[in-house]
Amino acid sequence: MDLTAPTAALASAAADLVRLVPGKFVDPVLSGVLLTATAAGVGLAASDRERTATVSCGAVTHTDGQVLVPGKPLAETLRALTDPEVRLVVEGNRLAIRASGARFALPLLDHTLHPGVRLVSGPGGTVSGSAFATALATAASTAARDEALPVFTGVRIRSEGDRLVLRATDRYRMAIASLPWEPHGEIDVMVPATLLAEVGKQVSGVGQARLTAAANQFGVAWGRTAVATAVLDGSYLSETKLALSDVDTRVVVDAESLVAATRRVALYSDARGVVKVEVGDSELRLRATDHNAGEAEESLKATVSGGRTSPSYQSRYLLDALRPFSGEVELAIQPGMRATVVTAVEPGEVDLRYILMPMLPPKI
Amino acid sequence: MDLTAPTAALASAAADLVRLVPGKFVDPVLSGVLLTATAAGVGLAASDRERTATVSCGAVTHTDGQVLVPGKPLAETLRALTDPEVRLVVEGNRLAIRASGARFALPLLDHTLHPGVRLVSGPGGTVSGSAFATALATAASTAARDEALPVFTGVRIRSEGDRLVLRATDRYRMAIASLPWEPHGEIDVMVPATLLAEVGKQVSGVGQARLTAAANQFGVAWGRTAVATAVLDGSYLSETKLALSDVDTRVVVDAESLVAATRRVALYSDARGVVKVEVGDSELRLRATDHNAGEAEESLKATVSGGRTSPSYQSRYLLDALRPFSGEVELAIQPGMRATVVTAVEPGEVDLRYILMPMLPPKI
Repeated sequence: MDLTAPTAALASAAADLVRLVPGKFVDPVLSGVLLTATAAGVGLAASDRERTATVSCGAVTHTDGQVLVPGKPLAETLRALTDPEVRLVVEGNRLAIRASGARFALPLLDHTLHPGVRLVSGPGGTVSGSAFATALATAASTAARDEALPVFTGVRIRSEGDRLVLRATDRYRMAIASLPWEPHGEIDVMVPATLLAEVGKQVSGVGQARLTAAANQFGVAWGRTAVATAVLDGSYLSETKLALSDVDTRVVVDAESLVAATRRVALYSDARGVVKVEVGDSELRLRATDHNAGEAEESLKATVSGGRTSPSYQSRYLLDALRPFSGEVELAIQPGMRATVVTAVEPGEVDLRYILMPMLPPKI
Repeated sequence: MDLTAPTAALASAAADLVRLVPGKFVDPVLSGVLLTATAAGVGLAASDRERTATVSCGAVTHTDGQVLVPGKPLAETLRALTDPEVRLVVEGNRLAIRASGARFALPLLDHTLHPGVRLVSGPGGTVSGSAFATALATAASTAARDEALPVFTGVRIRSEGDRLVLRATDRYRMAIASLPWEPHGEIDVMVPATLLAEVGKQVSGVGQARLTAAANQFGVAWGRTAVATAVLDGSYLSETKLALSDVDTRVVVDAESLVAATRRVALYSDARGVVKVEVGDSELRLRATDHNAGEAEESLKATVSGGRTSPSYQSRYLLDALRPFSGEVELAIQPGMRATVVTAVEPGEVDLRYILMPMLPPKI
């Protein structure tokens, strides 16, 4: 194998690939990058058996070939280079990365041991890259990180007519994001949130992403990148089974103002981190108290209709619920220990609902 | 106590104070901020017995008084406020921090238990704030972090005629920074590096800093801030006792180019992190190798005089040694396992020397 490529493009391809498939520490082959040089350019591929990714990059190929090299050292070396072009050439049992005055040589791994990459074919559709990124930013961060309950580490991605709906929960809150969808069939899969969080970062700048679902497989492709992953088993309660019929209090408030006030008041919250939201006639009053820290209260203007139910929330979860929104949000509050739903008063392309469970109030 | 102060100035005073005296977790009094309101404004003071600091801030005092409150919550609350003015008023056993629509109340601690603040008087002198900051950035970061050998956690600050000389070592390398000094007496003290690192950050923008040494005490004052600390016992070898007479190789090279090349080559270094610097006729060739990572070499232009002694260094220490410099540096290299001295070819206001011990070469 022998090729010359633009350094920045190749470095970015290798970095994207390593972020999508960080690999398994136990097996160097599963942390390797498979480089394939052909007349069409260079293909980079990685697989840890559960997920696979490919990124292609323009290159001038002097000699075709395929090698497997350690992924992170390749990405770090390319990132550190400042020359506009870089040459990758096999020299004995090494892949040499050559720039002016410098030679870096990575050991070749046995590429016959590599599990290869999968292509997913099946029903799917397309979404706008920026809308998908917005929806994933909230959904992927709401899923649980605790591997003990794998089903909560996923985002459920489901097509519903001309909308694609993403749902994620860690059992204490749930995010539901709906975005425009151009369908070529129906999909309903549970996809690991950690991969989707990285996909969200990478698709934010691209026009379109193509989603595909097959038996136990899910794939996303955009630009020169394609990712496939095994899906998670099972599904959890959809939000339609959460009874939201008892909403008796509706509050419209500026999201940023409520975030800023919650941050300040939460400095004084108890060990549970609870902030009480007292609903008044035309204001919210946030309150927190703690034996050691002291006490805080802050009022902000709000438009209140219905009752005066005054719930308490984990301040961190309330901040998570508000973060995706800008401008005015509506809080639909139910009495007792029942969920609150946060929605935008004027939803954009991505329609987001955030369901938040209340906590027992602090002892004020 | 009752006062009104500009929020930004008071927040910055509290933040500076808490960074200079982070306090001891075990005793809330030693993590407290002592607020003193008088007609002249408000004084903030903190002491953990070993170090003390005071910062003053303009304020309109409605009622004089003195209170002790938890330091970090005070600083965090002030930082989170967006109103231009803030009112601090004692209400019962609380200090209320009031802004429009909001009230935050901190518990009052018993200010009679506070050790109070020290003023250091004795010989001293003045330095430029920016030069002192530059010298401290290198010296304070070179001192050891390991508390097991306290003497190496200090920076030795010594007046030598019209220069102030700062020396720090962790036994593997030594930084020596000399800067212009307007003396009012001689000083020679060993000062804890962690405090000096924070002082360095805070004095970089001020015109002048006044240094004072007394028996077992060292103080620095600038603008509205004054710090005092207990000094460390003992002193270590001064660099004049390091024999630098055997320098047989002198290399002049661009500091930034050598940093960039070292960073790249170090990606391929062995478990010890060693990079070999081969000295050629008009170039340096950096080399590293590791059984797993592969091997790297990179050449860069240099002006070489004397011999061709080719030392090896811990790459991290070599990077630390080069970081303070810009433009051309001279490496004065001695044969064998003896120190290398890095200096600027054209020193600025702060004259910096960095002494670096070589390592056994990697197995290339």
